Amino acid sequence: MKLYMTEMSGNSFKVRVLAAMLGVDYENIRIDWENQAHKSSDFLALNPRGQVPVMEIEGKVFWDSTAHLVYIARKFGGEAWLPSDPLQMAEIMQWMSFAQNEVQFGLQWARGVTVYNRRPESFEGYLQDGKLALEVLEAQLSRTGDWLALGRVTLADIACYPYVKRAPEGDLPLTAYREVAAWLARCEALPGWIAMDP
Amino acid sequence: MKLYMTEMSGNSFKVRVLAAMLGVDYENIRIDWENQAHKSSDFLALNPRGQVPVMEIEGKVFWDSTAHLVYIARKFGGEAWLPSDPLQMAEIMQWMSFAQNEVQFGLQWARGVTVYNRRPESFEGYLQDGKLALEVLEAQLSRTGDWLALGRVTLADIACYPYVKRAPEGDLPLTAYREVAAWLARCEALPGWIAMDP
Repeated sequence: MKLYMTEMSGNSFKVRVLAAMLGVDYENIRIDWENQAHKSSDFLALNPRGQVPVMEIEGKVFWDSTAHLVYIARKFGGEAWLPSDPLQMAEIMQWMSFAQNEVQFGLQWARGVTVYNRRPESFEGYLQDGKLALEVLEAQLSRTGDWLALGRVTLADIACYPYVKRAPEGDLPLTAYREVAAWLARCEALPGWIAMDP
Repeated sequence: MKLYMTEMSGNSFKVRVLAAMLGVDYENIRIDWENQAHKSSDFLALNPRGQVPVMEIEGKVFWDSTAHLVYIARKFGGEAWLPSDPLQMAEIMQWMSFAQNEVQFGLQWARGVTVYNRRPESFEGYLQDGKLALEVLEAQLSRTGDWLALGRVTLADIACYPYVKRAPEGDLPLTAYREVAAWLARCEALPGWIAMDP
């Protein structure tokens, strides 16, 4: 397997940290983001969205971190990270979808404005959705305890972690979200966890 | 099972059409959207995001259509709509995630501006992402033929259908996307399909 990634990409990190925890071998191929390699015709042939991560798996190309996580979890993780039981799978998918919704177009994109000045006209909406993301996570962890789903660490936690961790860079501090902050620390204490930022 | 929904909600439609095709019984509970029932404290207790659809399944509440689709497909559809093979599951998940990404925050939200005047300051970005969504789908269908994944109809198609179908209402006409238009028609010709708009 090959992972086209950057160190700064939170979506790439999800894949890297799951692979690290499961001891899965793959080749990291760093994309030269600063020089717009992700917008080159070679890269767009792999991923028309022009984003990382992209993975080559069993001779096929996948360009969405949700797909990568599902593959690694089901191939190398048995029933631990994404069980095949319909109800349990649905519970995890709710949070993986949440990671692609408010966590992304709230928390991640707010940071896109403050760090990269991307679409500054939309900042208020990003802050509103990002705040909702943090409130939903805080309420969930208050109810469920240590982890988002199934009473144990699963793909749900891995998928939500990166852009929650970086929320303060997008003007969404975590000080009011004590359960969320404690959950981030629990993730970071997992066996095999790797640091997100170099 | 209970589905809290509105007829206008494309995310509710995904669940309704899959249940119809699989002959799954459930109770439809219409939310009085026009009178803001989705922002009432009773409804927010079910879904802190204040959105439909919400489902009660086996005594649990799920508030994301991806979770609903995964449950119904795995519980009632065998291996047809979402196979358990890691690579095949990943292929479908890529498109289900795409449905929650560019299809939603491009096509759906562009329509949010034109129909509901929601966040008009962000319209340019929505159009840009919506156009990318249509281009990616057109290119995929040009390669794969009738369906988005696995060479047959799957959750990938169901998840992407509603907001692609409604794209023209958001100033994103489908005239330049012939493969996409033909794919919509193929979805609508499936046995058991129901009409989206009343």
